[in-house]
Amino acid sequence: MTSGLTHLNEKGEAHIVDIGDKAVTRRRAVAQAVLSGQAETIATIMGGGLKKGDALAVARIAGIMAAKKTAELIPLCHPIPLTKVSVDISGASNTSIRVVATAETTGQTGVEMEALIAASTAALTLYDMAKAIDRAMVVSEMCLVEKSGGKSGDFARTP
Amino acid sequence: MTSGLTHLNEKGEAHIVDIGDKAVTRRRAVAQAVLSGQAETIATIMGGGLKKGDALAVARIAGIMAAKKTAELIPLCHPIPLTKVSVDISGASNTSIRVVATAETTGQTGVEMEALIAASTAALTLYDMAKAIDRAMVVSEMCLVEKSGGKSGDFARTP
Amino acid sequence: MTSGLTHLNEKGEAHIVDIGDKAVTRRRAVAQAVLSGQAETIATIMGGGLKKGDALAVARIAGIMAAKKTAELIPLCHPIPLTKVSVDISGASNTSIRVVATAETTGQTGVEMEALIAASTAALTLYDMAKAIDRAMVVSEMCLVEKSGGKSGDFARTP
Amino acid sequence: MTSGLTHLNEKGEAHIVDIGDKAVTRRRAVAQAVLSGQAETIATIMGGGLKKGDALAVARIAGIMAAKKTAELIPLCHPIPLTKVSVDISGASNTSIRVVATAETTGQTGVEMEALIAASTAALTLYDMAKAIDRAMVVSEMCLVEKSGGKSGDFARTP
Amino acid sequence: MTSGLTHLNEKGEAHIVDIGDKAVTRRRAVAQAVLSGQAETIATIMGGGLKKGDALAVARIAGIMAAKKTAELIPLCHPIPLTKVSVDISGASNTSIRVVATAETTGQTGVEMEALIAASTAALTLYDMAKAIDRAMVVSEMCLVEKSGGKSGDFARTP
Amino acid sequence: MTSGLTHLNEKGEAHIVDIGDKAVTRRRAVAQAVLSGQAETIATIMGGGLKKGDALAVARIAGIMAAKKTAELIPLCHPIPLTKVSVDISGASNTSIRVVATAETTGQTGVEMEALIAASTAALTLYDMAKAIDRAMVVSEMCLVEKSGGKSGDFARTP
Repeated sequence: MTSGLTHLNEKGEAHIVDIGDKAVTRRRAVAQAVLSGQAETIATIMGGGLKKGDALAVARIAGIMAAKKTAELIPLCHPIPLTKVSVDISGASNTSIRVVATAETTGQTGVEMEALIAASTAALTLYDMAKAIDRAMVVSEMCLVEKSGGKSGDFARTP
Repeated sequence: MTSGLTHLNEKGEAHIVDIGDKAVTRRRAVAQAVLSGQAETIATIMGGGLKKGDALAVARIAGIMAAKKTAELIPLCHPIPLTKVSVDISGASNTSIRVVATAETTGQTGVEMEALIAASTAALTLYDMAKAIDRAMVVSEMCLVEKSGGKSGDFARTP
Repeated sequence: MTSGLTHLNEKGEAHIVDIGDKAVTRRRAVAQAVLSGQAETIATIMGGGLKKGDALAVARIAGIMAAKKTAELIPLCHPIPLTKVSVDISGASNTSIRVVATAETTGQTGVEMEALIAASTAALTLYDMAKAIDRAMVVSEMCLVEKSGGKSGDFARTP
Repeated sequence: MTSGLTHLNEKGEAHIVDIGDKAVTRRRAVAQAVLSGQAETIATIMGGGLKKGDALAVARIAGIMAAKKTAELIPLCHPIPLTKVSVDISGASNTSIRVVATAETTGQTGVEMEALIAASTAALTLYDMAKAIDRAMVVSEMCLVEKSGGKSGDFARTP
Repeated sequence: MTSGLTHLNEKGEAHIVDIGDKAVTRRRAVAQAVLSGQAETIATIMGGGLKKGDALAVARIAGIMAAKKTAELIPLCHPIPLTKVSVDISGASNTSIRVVATAETTGQTGVEMEALIAASTAALTLYDMAKAIDRAMVVSEMCLVEKSGGKSGDFARTP
Repeated sequence: MTSGLTHLNEKGEAHIVDIGDKAVTRRRAVAQAVLSGQAETIATIMGGGLKKGDALAVARIAGIMAAKKTAELIPLCHPIPLTKVSVDISGASNTSIRVVATAETTGQTGVEMEALIAASTAALTLYDMAKAIDRAMVVSEMCLVEKSGGKSGDFARTP
């Protein structure tokens, strides 16, 4: 593959690569995204006050539903029947929130992109709900945390 | 609004806020995301070799198409008829790529989320195409760069 | 129209009727659905215990997001840029829950279907979360409660 | 599970539950919805006149297509490759129409929600086509009629 | 524009072109597709026998629903609130069927692609239903028939 | 089946046919579409000049992404987990371009419609990008080229 990218053929043209001969195995991926903002914004989102509200639930569900749309968003992703998706949102510091998404399948290809899309969408949904009070929030450290299953072997991010 | 978040009502319940009385104005938002990886990975994506291929085009189109799906992804976003979308991808350093997305509409609410979704999806599409060679790539500095139009006024990120 | 149905032409063939000449007005519709089950199920969903959890938030968000998909679900519906959507869930009796959905737009056609789809989807989402404990739950009284705006005038259900 | 709902974790947070260890079996579900209205409306929909038209076909197809969208509508549903979907529409009385939807799959989880979404969407599509002549129509008795396959065993509604 | 294509910028990169300054006008487009097959297949689809069935209705509805998905399918299309869509299917000869789709909007850009997507999808839906009896059917003469509205002026295909 | 069409039941009503008992086999389909226009238009699309741009990449990706949406577009198609999709675009003559799409799966039903949708959407995407310079372009010869796998046996179009 002269381009060095598996998703392009020898002429450099995009295609969905053939996975028809890959083994059906249990596959799992964990991805994260960190949303940073002013301390007051983060406290408001995390519900430091008495009134918690739906904010974190909205972001969790947005992440979960987006994971199921991954093949519609990432052009060269295979459609994958996910067997599990979860999104965990927790305070990382008084100025940041960590979103951790987990996706699993039993199939012929991995679910890294599903986990990343879930983390990204949950973080951006938090941004959407709080942008009226803090437009300058930033998402960072959005990456694969670990994955298992499949021929390419296990991966764990070195902290 | 006791929760402090506009997207939750006084009981803390999520809703799509009423924009029926807001003015129809030209609105524009620019957002970015930075994808960092090994120098060799970045060079491969940016087409440092002779063979450029579709990689950047795939990411641009993924970002553009995702912008049109924003209201499907972000639960409390209003559906917006975008009048313009573009995604610009350029080298930021020898180990990073900057994705800048611009969205415009003539309507009753802003397009910050459309620009952010475009930048996020384009960056993750680049990740998808290169993950076989560099699974540890990270997206950071994903944020609103500037916006104009609407009652809340203009915004420009302080560098 | 010999079929008596506006969505079919004189040959009885389905089409999306022309609204190009209709006035752009503020339009609002409220719809409901009632989910009935065993008292214990209803108490569990409504969070009678100490642990409330995301159940009602999930249903609210499902209803809101489904409203935005109405034109994808109801074949002859026009796509409508909703300006507001909300879903309210409350106990109706110790064996039933009432879902009330409100949709608004400024446009050339009404939003009855958007409100109905929101109510229906929120009720079925509650069913989905509780079906493992009470598969026999029933949705009833799913109907338009009121509407305003547009040439056909206001409507309010007679209780 | 302290919330008593399988779709929430021990903290009450929504997730798509892990079905990776469940057996792949043939699964089938039948759901219904009843649309009631004025006798004249029901006769018009059912095509009592000479001119039948597309009305019932539109509703059947809407139900079938919606069944394929179930995982997009119900947040915590797994995506399921349906192997069969059908929607049957028949007169229940001179003032009501019964919609019965059947869904089947070979997979790790049931298809109750697919059948319910098909029945609900077909009924609401009939409402949409006839609402100009009878806005007060009501959907009721929307429920699971029977299901088979899977660990939870068979279910048949007691009439 | 050095590429000669309006949808690419001066660097040859795809973007959704800015229509924010274009006038809002009534716009209409008509497109067609012709499906050819064996005489017996065409007769079966057109319902030459006593039993007509849903075949043509399924294709009409598929075309109508696809028109509403145009901006999801054609990457650089603007999302457009269609005000009318219809699909007409008629015998063109004893070995061919003509699908004619009409789309209308009041907006800033034309609806040629909506009409073409409707015609294409309706024709392919007919193919889908009949492919078990005639896999060699061919779609041809798929083109814009006429359009009106907008700065580029009216167009009518020369027969 | 009195209608002669497998997708309609004995009453002529549309349904998604039961494939639960069909064998899981490797299946492959190749489809094509030919876009004809003025020589200058074709040269512009194919990038005869120095500046190639994204045009062909946009069409390839549109075709690939549309293949994944086939079950949303063709009402009676089963959802299929595609294992491979590619779209090849090449000059057929100085006034025409040939789009060839290939789809593969390991499943219980064929992928003819996925290949046809990919070819059709890629061709219409080329039309979209070039319609400002040549509105009279025509798509023809849109058909199945070959298929393999499944009970109905192999098919190859006779040229």
